Amino acid sequence: MINKFTLNEGERLDDLHRNGYHVIQNPKSFCFGIDAVLLSDFARVKKGETVLDLGTGTGIVPILMEAKTDGFHFTGLEIQAESVDMAQRSVIGNGLSEKISIVHGDIKEIPTLFPQTTFDVVTTNPPYMNAGFVGETSAKSIARHEILCTLEDIIAGASRVLGTKGRFYMIHRPNRLTDIITMMRKHKLEPKTLRFVQPFVDKEPTMVLIEGAKDGSAWVNVLPPLIVYESVGKHTDEILQIYDRER
Amino acid sequence: MINKFTLNEGERLDDLHRNGYHVIQNPKSFCFGIDAVLLSDFARVKKGETVLDLGTGTGIVPILMEAKTDGFHFTGLEIQAESVDMAQRSVIGNGLSEKISIVHGDIKEIPTLFPQTTFDVVTTNPPYMNAGFVGETSAKSIARHEILCTLEDIIAGASRVLGTKGRFYMIHRPNRLTDIITMMRKHKLEPKTLRFVQPFVDKEPTMVLIEGAKDGSAWVNVLPPLIVYESVGKHTDEILQIYDRER
Repeated sequence: MINKFTLNEGERLDDLHRNGYHVIQNPKSFCFGIDAVLLSDFARVKKGETVLDLGTGTGIVPILMEAKTDGFHFTGLEIQAESVDMAQRSVIGNGLSEKISIVHGDIKEIPTLFPQTTFDVVTTNPPYMNAGFVGETSAKSIARHEILCTLEDIIAGASRVLGTKGRFYMIHRPNRLTDIITMMRKHKLEPKTLRFVQPFVDKEPTMVLIEGAKDGSAWVNVLPPLIVYESVGKHTDEILQIYDRER
Repeated sequence: MINKFTLNEGERLDDLHRNGYHVIQNPKSFCFGIDAVLLSDFARVKKGETVLDLGTGTGIVPILMEAKTDGFHFTGLEIQAESVDMAQRSVIGNGLSEKISIVHGDIKEIPTLFPQTTFDVVTTNPPYMNAGFVGETSAKSIARHEILCTLEDIIAGASRVLGTKGRFYMIHRPNRLTDIITMMRKHKLEPKTLRFVQPFVDKEPTMVLIEGAKDGSAWVNVLPPLIVYESVGKHTDEILQIYDRER
């Protein structure tokens, strides 16, 4: 089967090196980074489970998870119309219309968008930074700053659609860890696994992967850090495996 | 000056390899481990500051910090009479009676023991485990389990004796991180620095060092992990430096 992708001006098609899948992106708005790839690898999705990705952007996380897991169905929620449009064309182009739905909507409206406890798993690669002093509201800044939704909106929304033992996966910045952990506990998404991501073995982590369990017990496993580079320009074997590439 | 240590039956005198200091311990009750050494190295104590160590045991943390820092005065609070007695004899033996006070008392009674905002720094190497199913109340189990005080008693007590910007240093188990972080924020000791301690570079951390600041802002720096062993039986240079020993 030859998949057909409809591209608009300024857009490009990127090969995901998984199942022949591609994703449409616009370099002028926002392109996915290593964080989306790490999140989709960290999230455990079991056979037959349903998954919601909050702030899905161009749909990169559900598309990668569809390739990597035996999940039954994936939904991506995104507020920006331009991203929703690209994500929907990527889903169609990859022939995944029956496996992935892209929903145009606001995380703060989750109670009206989905029934309670609808999903087995929620993933999210949210804006990392406080809205703070951001003046502009470009697609890029909306993807990076808490302009249209806060960390708490995301955690509260995730908790609402997960049933007991439902799993929550997020990638974020280590500096926000106190906010993340206190809000997860507040909304009954108990942290179960933490994994920091370090550029090098002796450098501070720049990202943290976190797994929470709805109504889980107070016990968190901290994994050894995930190291990105073995030396300058040379990825570690673990990163190459995650990207499914050979050295 | 030749220091004189009065030893009781069953006790032994251990060389701390710092300023010629020694500490009296009883192998039948509880001996300090690497955690006390790491905590005393992690805690920043500036010239002229006053320090309180909560649950000081045989006084190992204040004795090491007196050797390593320019702090003005160190107080160790301990509930177990036998440990208090050993700690006091160690302080006298090392000629530190003017620098270190050992107080026999209960962390839960801090409001009656010390005025508010008395100290610049609080350190603690508390019991790591929930009281849970512990039946016995030996000196060892009191030092290891939350039998006589909970994590929250310690954090609340520390917060009470620290003024704004006062610093709190604790070593604990990574599995308790959610409890630690949520209770620190609740008691206005905002986490500022986290450092995990791993036995080997690719193994899960077994301890976490945490720095909090009274009334601090919500921003935490996660440091690269502290690795204990380079290979089996061979400490890393950083650990050897902390112990002030040569390879």
